[in-house]
Amino acid sequence: MSFKDKDPFFVQMHKLTGIRAKNIALYKLAFKHKSKNQENNERLEFLGDSILDAIISEIIYNNFPNKDEGELSKLRSKMVSRNMLNTLGNNLNLLSIISYRETHTKDGLNNTVGNALEALIGAVYLDQGYPACQVFIEKKLVDPYIDWQQLEAKVTDHKSSLFRYCQKEKKHLQFVLLEENAIDDPKRFHIGLKIDYEQVADAFGKSKKIAEQKAAKGYLEERELISQ
Amino acid sequence: MSFKDKDPFFVQMHKLTGIRAKNIALYKLAFKHKSKNQENNERLEFLGDSILDAIISEIIYNNFPNKDEGELSKLRSKMVSRNMLNTLGNNLNLLSIISYRETHTKDGLNNTVGNALEALIGAVYLDQGYPACQVFIEKKLVDPYIDWQQLEAKVTDHKSSLFRYCQKEKKHLQFVLLEENAIDDPKRFHIGLKIDYEQVADAFGKSKKIAEQKAAKGYLEERELISQ
Repeated sequence: MSFKDKDPFFVQMHKLTGIRAKNIALYKLAFKHKSKNQENNERLEFLGDSILDAIISEIIYNNFPNKDEGELSKLRSKMVSRNMLNTLGNNLNLLSIISYRETHTKDGLNNTVGNALEALIGAVYLDQGYPACQVFIEKKLVDPYIDWQQLEAKVTDHKSSLFRYCQKEKKHLQFVLLEENAIDDPKRFHIGLKIDYEQVADAFGKSKKIAEQKAAKGYLEERELISQ
Repeated sequence: MSFKDKDPFFVQMHKLTGIRAKNIALYKLAFKHKSKNQENNERLEFLGDSILDAIISEIIYNNFPNKDEGELSKLRSKMVSRNMLNTLGNNLNLLSIISYRETHTKDGLNNTVGNALEALIGAVYLDQGYPACQVFIEKKLVDPYIDWQQLEAKVTDHKSSLFRYCQKEKKHLQFVLLEENAIDDPKRFHIGLKIDYEQVADAFGKSKKIAEQKAAKGYLEERELISQ
């Protein structure tokens, strides 16, 4: 099929989303900011926001079978944060398509871009249904731009992982304070990790909690229970 | 197809959801509370929560074409509130299915029921896909138990509706304070509503805001711009 009879906006949307729009008016609406348009993209943004949440939730649910719901929630928060949406929207160069009144601050403009991305997701969903919207989000937003390992590192709770591991393997787990004020620093704690009553790792940290996390991470990495 | 060879839990799930489960293990997991089960329903609850949000968002988006995103958000909040989920879960008598340790408070138990409902939605989604999950939510949760008019009344902002109407029809809108301390009550305000400089409605209220809402509602109802 050639695009030669199609209007430029249809072609632009195809390039952007990989989708041949059935109802191009939905996509047009997605780029109408309230500052310039009485009929604007806010309702589509409402819808797209929750569709994105659902699709990202499933991706995370499938990609991280060993994470508990607290960690899944943290991953989702990172993934659908205002900041991330603005960045993704800027990656797709959405600002050049949005109809808005040019009286915005830079922060305002960034949010305008993130919101338009949500509205576009709403438009794709209404136009194409859920599975096609999943494909759009995975192929155009997640796969090219999201580093799951990096996101995971930001939210991972190694102590909880180790706790679950020991529960599963029926091993006894204990953190012990080896030294407080280590190296003459009042904020430095030296923590030992004992598994089945044998010390298997240790770490320093500004707080007990940080030192415990580091010791747990060290042990999990050494045993290749997590990637380094 | 007869159910005579099927296990009782399969039959129970069919009765509850209208669905013939493909992977019955997912449904079993949905009713495993963490108080009694190491492998529990919390991850399914994480997923189901966001799937429910998306499906309810679309229902609201379609049912209320004239509401702005603020009103849509309020409607969704009412609809997916902890309270509503617990009530819906109790309507479905989910507690009788849940595996939990009986040391809960009544509030705790209620939340256990609402959370299990979210987990069940997650199970239905994974087992059957999005469109079937939409049908389940509409037929088993929304249609029998949700009174949209009642929910709408709780969140409707008549002043905003009237403001939008006047903007669209290019009419001048003004609220005027007719009397303060009306009927010797220091908290009683009498407000007049003028459209195109002519008084078309009035109302009393404990605050100016309440009286304005009532006047706007009265006018919209009289003109049959909203249902009474």
